[in-house]
Amino acid sequence: MAANVPLLVPEVNPDHAAAIAMQRTRDARSTEHGWSGSIVTNPNCSATPLVMALKPLQEAFGVRKVMVTTLQAISGAGYPGVPSYDILDNAIPYIGGEEEKVEHETRKMLGSWESGHGFIDAPITVSAQCNRVATREGHLECVSVELGSEVSLEDIIIAWENYVPEPQRLGLPSAPAHALVYRRERDRPQTLLDRDAGRGMTTTIGRLRTCPILGYKFVLLAHNTIRGAAGGSILNAELCVSKGLV
Amino acid sequence: MAANVPLLVPEVNPDHAAAIAMQRTRDARSTEHGWSGSIVTNPNCSATPLVMALKPLQEAFGVRKVMVTTLQAISGAGYPGVPSYDILDNAIPYIGGEEEKVEHETRKMLGSWESGHGFIDAPITVSAQCNRVATREGHLECVSVELGSEVSLEDIIIAWENYVPEPQRLGLPSAPAHALVYRRERDRPQTLLDRDAGRGMTTTIGRLRTCPILGYKFVLLAHNTIRGAAGGSILNAELCVSKGLV
Amino acid sequence: MAANVPLLVPEVNPDHAAAIAMQRTRDARSTEHGWSGSIVTNPNCSATPLVMALKPLQEAFGVRKVMVTTLQAISGAGYPGVPSYDILDNAIPYIGGEEEKVEHETRKMLGSWESGHGFIDAPITVSAQCNRVATREGHLECVSVELGSEVSLEDIIIAWENYVPEPQRLGLPSAPAHALVYRRERDRPQTLLDRDAGRGMTTTIGRLRTCPILGYKFVLLAHNTIRGAAGGSILNAELCVSKGLV
Amino acid sequence: MAANVPLLVPEVNPDHAAAIAMQRTRDARSTEHGWSGSIVTNPNCSATPLVMALKPLQEAFGVRKVMVTTLQAISGAGYPGVPSYDILDNAIPYIGGEEEKVEHETRKMLGSWESGHGFIDAPITVSAQCNRVATREGHLECVSVELGSEVSLEDIIIAWENYVPEPQRLGLPSAPAHALVYRRERDRPQTLLDRDAGRGMTTTIGRLRTCPILGYKFVLLAHNTIRGAAGGSILNAELCVSKGLV
Repeated sequence: MAANVPLLVPEVNPDHAAAIAMQRTRDARSTEHGWSGSIVTNPNCSATPLVMALKPLQEAFGVRKVMVTTLQAISGAGYPGVPSYDILDNAIPYIGGEEEKVEHETRKMLGSWESGHGFIDAPITVSAQCNRVATREGHLECVSVELGSEVSLEDIIIAWENYVPEPQRLGLPSAPAHALVYRRERDRPQTLLDRDAGRGMTTTIGRLRTCPILGYKFVLLAHNTIRGAAGGSILNAELCVSKGLV
Repeated sequence: MAANVPLLVPEVNPDHAAAIAMQRTRDARSTEHGWSGSIVTNPNCSATPLVMALKPLQEAFGVRKVMVTTLQAISGAGYPGVPSYDILDNAIPYIGGEEEKVEHETRKMLGSWESGHGFIDAPITVSAQCNRVATREGHLECVSVELGSEVSLEDIIIAWENYVPEPQRLGLPSAPAHALVYRRERDRPQTLLDRDAGRGMTTTIGRLRTCPILGYKFVLLAHNTIRGAAGGSILNAELCVSKGLV
Repeated sequence: MAANVPLLVPEVNPDHAAAIAMQRTRDARSTEHGWSGSIVTNPNCSATPLVMALKPLQEAFGVRKVMVTTLQAISGAGYPGVPSYDILDNAIPYIGGEEEKVEHETRKMLGSWESGHGFIDAPITVSAQCNRVATREGHLECVSVELGSEVSLEDIIIAWENYVPEPQRLGLPSAPAHALVYRRERDRPQTLLDRDAGRGMTTTIGRLRTCPILGYKFVLLAHNTIRGAAGGSILNAELCVSKGLV
Repeated sequence: MAANVPLLVPEVNPDHAAAIAMQRTRDARSTEHGWSGSIVTNPNCSATPLVMALKPLQEAFGVRKVMVTTLQAISGAGYPGVPSYDILDNAIPYIGGEEEKVEHETRKMLGSWESGHGFIDAPITVSAQCNRVATREGHLECVSVELGSEVSLEDIIIAWENYVPEPQRLGLPSAPAHALVYRRERDRPQTLLDRDAGRGMTTTIGRLRTCPILGYKFVLLAHNTIRGAAGGSILNAELCVSKGLV
């Protein structure tokens, strides 16, 4: 969360990559310290698909509040990670530091980068509850959102389905055909069935319905170790290369 | 959800049992139809522990809004229930009719019974998202609430810890020593570790913290087939006997 | 197990396909009954990889006795199959009819087809114990064998590694590059790690060591719904086409 | 496996406790080394229930050969033990050192202790294959045995059902009512359903049938962390106290 280190999700905030140039300027002054690369940080594996689903809504309607409860796979804890005796036949409603990361990183990634000022958080209130469940891969997230304007459910689905972000426009090698897929079945996305969508790079959304408290609720699912980690890093690198930043 | 059939949780709405007398009056007129018993319905196994946790807050502070996301055990679906091929290494964000039940029954159970008028829903907005996970027993629920007044976290914990509802006051045989237990560890309750609390009849609460959207959030856990079904039915029967209703 | 219906595993008993011609002759006489196709039966999904592993040993050294204990995936029971409540955190040492099938079919498939006489079982004693475990796909089998001659462990591995059966010689489209793969790591094959070998068509073997009772023991693993069912059927069809039998 | 350290299972070899007196004699000479207690070792958690099931057969009919394939719970590996990422949706046919222990300890425990000579292994050939599966507690074992004489299946069941070993005769506090229980259902014992028999101290046997290779086969199940560890230690201590050895 350092001042000029971007949390980059190419489908969401490719403009944040500009912060790298700023790092470089400073690095130029600090090569005497023997190090002159740039840092791009991989965002949290739960925050990544969340901002992917929110970005088109933010652009089209504005987003004010986001309540999210996650059901996260064991692979999110690395290896050896969660002991089997802790998670078999269990659900654990605590992942150290995770809720804070989801809340902070979501605001940062949906915020703006202003040269000379740095990162400015999006004015969105985020509340997260994070759970570990006995799945191998795939973070499932139950989301409620308050938008900036009242729209129909179909308007929201169209915003997701029409969303063609920069990696897809640029045709980056690791970009899936669709950054977002909305499934209309009543019981999708499911962790096991949808985590490999777009070779693990697509975020799958479903179950959009009205929420009597915040207006809208839905479910999203993404592969935490591909989209949320290794694959995301590669896509970041591809973006930086295409922008001439590395 | 019939007009004069109570959804009874003895720790929450023992006064709703009065609706049975009303049934009896009508039954007296209808014995010609060959049936003269009374009906008490077991509430939904996710709604039951939710109203147990909310009732002391409603009494002490008022409750305005409740957002809940559940992680429900496979036994909630009865037997044979969920095929293993559907749930092993999976989480399913859909349980038919469950979200509607949690939303409606919570309002009804926290509402009032007024002789001559019937049941009047509590003025609480409830929004539920229900998920099936690969646990044998125990429904875990992540809850955010908006209360009627601003209170400290410690006030809320005290309200839970000091709560002694009617089954405990009456010393009903199936009533656990504590209807509610609040655990202060940062990673409790957990499905596996807490579902058998109070021989499966206690609702365990934990992780109370501020919610930037609704004010407060916490996690609760109860045994769905004991507290949420068989054990709850027995406790209902014990309450009715002690009140001279059967 | 009918008289002239072959249990065909193309890597093991492609010559049994000749039984089809015999069926045809009889069918020719029976078309008045309105049906004139041929029947090839898919063998049991546990017996299939077992005979694949045994065939090269039978050819090179002879096989006298086979003791096998299986750990079979839930998908072997079809859908909806095993209720999750029966198998989560459980192992079930009984699968109806399975042990008998493994014992009978192994002898039949490793036996011979003699025109005019039909199928003659191989003179091998087989004893099976079959268990259901909580894996999605992949049948793991712990095998002890008594061979016809005393050989070194390395001789056995070479027999497996040099085995190039008919589908591979013919280059059938669904045949994997290697029908059998022997892994030398001390903890392989594993259900999760090896079930997809050869796109699910390869049988993976490992842990060959001496057995103080029968002489040799090892572990094998195959994908039950690909190798053991759908993929095996397609390979059977490809073999029959290549032999001009259909 | 030291020369005068017994592997004690009170239901099987209570006479091996005599080795402790021998230790004491030597200890008396070695108190100059500052240590004067006695050592009793807890046997392997898979070998323990195996010898419990074999002992009555050895006494009644003699036992010559034992082939055993285990399906062992994750708790057998201690804590943190098996990473969840290694075992969820997997079976692992390797547990370091386990097969050797089962083979050696079974012979030692079913052998004799002769003062002046030490432990003499039983003349039984044992072959073990050990697997880790995704169960929390309970080791399931598929066993084939060759007995010293030909007997009926019912004779064997009677030997198990009539077995009243020393802890039960002495009424040791931790001894379950029945050391062994034979279940006649075709699909028992099961890990989940039978591990808690006798408060985790009973070994449950089932599925006795003929084995075409060794004569007889059956399945057994015991709680690995109670019978196979903590509970077994307590029973050992109770036995030693009752024999005046501590």
